[in-house]
Amino acid sequence: MAKSSKGVLMGNAAIGQSGGPTAVINQSLVGVIEGLRGFAGVRKVYGMRHGVSGLIKSPPALVEVGRLSPAKLNAIARTPSSALGSSRDKPDAAYCGKILESCRAAEIRYFFYIGGNDSSDTCRIVSELAASTGYDMRCFHVPKTVDNDLVQSDHCPGFPSAARYVATAFMADNLDNASLPGVKINVVMGRHAGFLTAASVLGRRNRDDGPHLIYLPEVPFDNEGFVRDVQAVYDRLGRCQIAVSEGIQTSDGRPVAETLIDGLERDAHGNVQLSGVGGLGDALANVVKSRVKRSDGKPPRVRADTLGYLQRCWPDFSPVDAREARAAGKFAAKLAASGAASGSVALVRARGKAYKAVFERVELKEIAAKTRHMPAEFIDGRHGVTPAFVQYAAPLVGKLPEFARI
Amino acid sequence: MAKSSKGVLMGNAAIGQSGGPTAVINQSLVGVIEGLRGFAGVRKVYGMRHGVSGLIKSPPALVEVGRLSPAKLNAIARTPSSALGSSRDKPDAAYCGKILESCRAAEIRYFFYIGGNDSSDTCRIVSELAASTGYDMRCFHVPKTVDNDLVQSDHCPGFPSAARYVATAFMADNLDNASLPGVKINVVMGRHAGFLTAASVLGRRNRDDGPHLIYLPEVPFDNEGFVRDVQAVYDRLGRCQIAVSEGIQTSDGRPVAETLIDGLERDAHGNVQLSGVGGLGDALANVVKSRVKRSDGKPPRVRADTLGYLQRCWPDFSPVDAREARAAGKFAAKLAASGAASGSVALVRARGKAYKAVFERVELKEIAAKTRHMPAEFIDGRHGVTPAFVQYAAPLVGKLPEFARI
Repeated sequence: MAKSSKGVLMGNAAIGQSGGPTAVINQSLVGVIEGLRGFAGVRKVYGMRHGVSGLIKSPPALVEVGRLSPAKLNAIARTPSSALGSSRDKPDAAYCGKILESCRAAEIRYFFYIGGNDSSDTCRIVSELAASTGYDMRCFHVPKTVDNDLVQSDHCPGFPSAARYVATAFMADNLDNASLPGVKINVVMGRHAGFLTAASVLGRRNRDDGPHLIYLPEVPFDNEGFVRDVQAVYDRLGRCQIAVSEGIQTSDGRPVAETLIDGLERDAHGNVQLSGVGGLGDALANVVKSRVKRSDGKPPRVRADTLGYLQRCWPDFSPVDAREARAAGKFAAKLAASGAASGSVALVRARGKAYKAVFERVELKEIAAKTRHMPAEFIDGRHGVTPAFVQYAAPLVGKLPEFARI
Repeated sequence: MAKSSKGVLMGNAAIGQSGGPTAVINQSLVGVIEGLRGFAGVRKVYGMRHGVSGLIKSPPALVEVGRLSPAKLNAIARTPSSALGSSRDKPDAAYCGKILESCRAAEIRYFFYIGGNDSSDTCRIVSELAASTGYDMRCFHVPKTVDNDLVQSDHCPGFPSAARYVATAFMADNLDNASLPGVKINVVMGRHAGFLTAASVLGRRNRDDGPHLIYLPEVPFDNEGFVRDVQAVYDRLGRCQIAVSEGIQTSDGRPVAETLIDGLERDAHGNVQLSGVGGLGDALANVVKSRVKRSDGKPPRVRADTLGYLQRCWPDFSPVDAREARAAGKFAAKLAASGAASGSVALVRARGKAYKAVFERVELKEIAAKTRHMPAEFIDGRHGVTPAFVQYAAPLVGKLPEFARI
């Protein structure tokens, strides 16, 4: 019997985590588990090991998570990176057929997928396939991405904690750069959207604090302009701290990483590998070394760091982010319990002085496989961000450290 | 009058910060300032802007720091990176002559230099030069280095906080690597000494936690052994997290970075640039991609991060380190107040179950320009560290985050 006497769809639930982990993705996992408690439609709550790639295994790699103690759930929620394991698979129709087959076999009637825009697309395909084959299964997407590139939402769970790490990193590195002056390039995650790179400015407190130049994927990058920008800041301050998105592009849409480095790895989708490689920073450092001059004609001291995977897993999460990620999971569970057939969760910021956000259900097709970029009002010319961006992002990251000067 | 009626040497004091900054180097600065309070021999306390490079300027770049309020001093102490600015100058005899000249002109009778082994050597030369020219000036070195490579000390202020960052980074990255399995290489600071790279193990809690392989500068590195090690761990766990010191060397003493990368920058001392560049990690990643195989014969997913300058400036310092760095500065000031002619400060660990360290004066010539390495009892074979190292380092870094597993 798929329906109870009250008409509630009866079955098991499965929760998966997908794509790049974040510092708070387990908050969302725990939020779904907590949100399903007391809902009579769900018998067992399973976690998928490594997302849908575990689900389609024979036998499926599922672990029961519905009976974990509150203490254990709280400990998991505070742990960064996908506790169930993640997957980078991008299922096509045939793959989604296998997902559906596994769900039927395990009597899964409630399907939750925590991830970015690819994951919402997986949810959408599975949901449509289930409907077309007459298997009643409810599919819900819980948003997660450090890139902040999901449409329809004010911001995405995962972004505020990554932004907190990036802002703190630039604050500390700015002091390091001031103490041993030179040109310092820090490469920040974000293939298509510049939100995380923009977050580098959130700790600026004094007029001469870095970052002094910010290069976003949304603004075409050119070498000549870059060299001029760096020279101008260096002439003025004797140093220059630079935030560069890994996804910066030339005016014809080519990744700069691709134009400067030979033999970059490509993934299954034909994208060049941007994270987990230091090449872009090193290549830009070489541009500065060969083109920018000190007043004595010599090249300045130039260093490059690529902030790397710690941006998405550093365990000092934003309190707002932890709370919202948990609540987003709970909201998805409540959608299921209220009889919704499918949906994703959007965060909508309430008007007013104090920061507040509420959750809304959105259709999967509204966000599936779509990418949001930095809006024009957040971008200031060729190498800056606006006060409007700071106003937008500052409440999300929480209290940053305070530093003193002599 | 250089001496008071009681025979106390009268004059001004100057404090400088040198070399790579740390998260607690300002604790030592504040410690010296606090330690000099109430000492009748000192009239004014100056800070040198950018170490001796500021001192020898005309006019010398000095800032009075003796009258800063306790609140301001506490705020400075909590701020990472040299608040006075640092210098990488390595003074020779002529340069030290200029230092002495500036000291005479500014009536500096007490000279404090916070830094690593190069800075202790600067102290030594200045001290000897002062004595030989009949200028009574007392020179004190306050130890600071993230590399932990000063001789005579159990450990150095600055190391515990950097070790805390490295341990936390490996813990978080280990979760990231477990969630999206592959080979992950993290390059850690330390040109000659492997202490900081070894600290990558301090957060291991489960049998299969990373880092699974640790490569130190003290153990000759060879490509063939490296490939075999990675393949063995990957076959066993389906993933492999690797800690690599930036300073790893071949059996004939060449930096591996130099053997794998063309065109590396060299500094004034002929050393290749190891920090602020991602090349070593990328080169090792390419070795793994081309040589290590999954069971289906394809290369594994391989990523490399270079932890970079955040290791030495991340603002989440170790509480033990903050306390000891402050106390080391105070101890140096008290040496001066007690009439010592010169000296450096060593940290000696007291025997007993609970961690405790005390300070001792050591002669400048005992530590100047000498480098300490990881002792044999801390090194386990070709790619590991021993429980003795963990016992040594664990009390220094403070409480690490606790993570849960499903």
